[in-house]
Amino acid sequence: METLTSSQNPKIKRILSLRKKRERDQTNLFLIEGYRELLSAVDNGFSIKSLFVCPEFFLKTNEKALVDKIQKKTCDIYKLPEYLFEKISYRDRPDGLLAIAKQESLSLEKIKDLCKEGVYFVVAESIEKPGNLGTILRSSDAAGAAFLVVCDPCTDIFNPNVVRASVGTLFTVPVVVCDKNEFFSFCKKEKITICAATPAAKKIFTQTDLSGKIALCMGTEQYGLSDQFLQKADLLVKIPMMGKADSLNVASATTLMLYETLRQRQG
Amino acid sequence: METLTSSQNPKIKRILSLRKKRERDQTNLFLIEGYRELLSAVDNGFSIKSLFVCPEFFLKTNEKALVDKIQKKTCDIYKLPEYLFEKISYRDRPDGLLAIAKQESLSLEKIKDLCKEGVYFVVAESIEKPGNLGTILRSSDAAGAAFLVVCDPCTDIFNPNVVRASVGTLFTVPVVVCDKNEFFSFCKKEKITICAATPAAKKIFTQTDLSGKIALCMGTEQYGLSDQFLQKADLLVKIPMMGKADSLNVASATTLMLYETLRQRQG
Repeated sequence: METLTSSQNPKIKRILSLRKKRERDQTNLFLIEGYRELLSAVDNGFSIKSLFVCPEFFLKTNEKALVDKIQKKTCDIYKLPEYLFEKISYRDRPDGLLAIAKQESLSLEKIKDLCKEGVYFVVAESIEKPGNLGTILRSSDAAGAAFLVVCDPCTDIFNPNVVRASVGTLFTVPVVVCDKNEFFSFCKKEKITICAATPAAKKIFTQTDLSGKIALCMGTEQYGLSDQFLQKADLLVKIPMMGKADSLNVASATTLMLYETLRQRQG
Repeated sequence: METLTSSQNPKIKRILSLRKKRERDQTNLFLIEGYRELLSAVDNGFSIKSLFVCPEFFLKTNEKALVDKIQKKTCDIYKLPEYLFEKISYRDRPDGLLAIAKQESLSLEKIKDLCKEGVYFVVAESIEKPGNLGTILRSSDAAGAAFLVVCDPCTDIFNPNVVRASVGTLFTVPVVVCDKNEFFSFCKKEKITICAATPAAKKIFTQTDLSGKIALCMGTEQYGLSDQFLQKADLLVKIPMMGKADSLNVASATTLMLYETLRQRQG
């Protein structure tokens, strides 16, 4: 295990550069920080290229076993002193593990087999905030959604804040990134109901039949779904707004749609 | 309207110091940034002490009317150039409005009258992240909860990130900060059912009767509710976890509890 001590080391600079979207796009690499996140990535077959550790920060969960597991897969491992690890860390309280990994995402073609009877999943159109996208992944995992479709993204799914907010579910939930027209054709072919959540709807989500194959479509934080989505939708539903502010966080609204779909399947 | 140009001006330093909890506690003041947030604060009777504006950043919503309204209430108004406003702003894209306001919060005694038949509300125990507390306020407003109880807080409700994530609902939802024992006595006296959300519960939240006067208790991000809450609870419910990660964001989980309570009241 090589030790790095200088912030001028090209490997350190490489890590910092991967905080930028452009660099992630060009290299097809991204950053994973934290024990829980890294364990999830490894267990779900993501390829780790380099691992940076600072044992002084370990929380003594089971770091050694994880590091050994990663080392077996011919990945470079570097040891860093605390001051240098703090520099590369994205967190207030780093836990001493940060990796560079290869991006993986799927095409609609590849998730066709997951579209069985009763399949449900979220479609996130142009979500802006990485934290919201991460939380949507977390809720998709928890509610048992088959996958997540991200249409015309404003934030890439490998943004460090998506990884963080998803607490590892970026690696457990299959993610497809595509444009909306591809998605509409896919739904037609696979006979999937396009359900749009919009304040303009007449039907309340808990009083609407959400059975069958269903895509739960959610729009941007500020403007909601685009007109194209609203026009293509087979079903429009709204979440009741009983307060003064008439607004829910988009990840909260998505969680409601997911768990209502689950409730209707489980009783 | 006085113009400020120096970052060394004591008024500018005052603003920056109010980002710190200690200063907020000592002065009983806090910061409100943004048109939407400030409008909500003014409309709901919060007292604005000083207002700082940068007209170059105005989004031309209706800033002039709002500034006039605030000015009538004998508040000091200062004009800042862009470079200086960017320094005091908490946002990536400031909209030219930032105020210092007086903190207001309620006691359990004062919300007694809101505890009518069928009342429902969230109790947030020791939530750590300001963003989660803000999102819980937003969902409480949307789902029509009567108020929010914050027990033994780790983050104060006047943290700038709570204000931001609440998008103005900090001013529409009555908030009580108290310790848990006060809260337990209050529930006993007011005959309120204490419902605790915990993965250890046997009953699923959507299959449990949540009618009557009910307190929906949610615990910390990492450890959930304390043992004292679990022991005092009249009702334990869980949210089904169908995924690999077994975890939901606390604000998402709170939103589910709130809307299930509403669904059971509305059908």
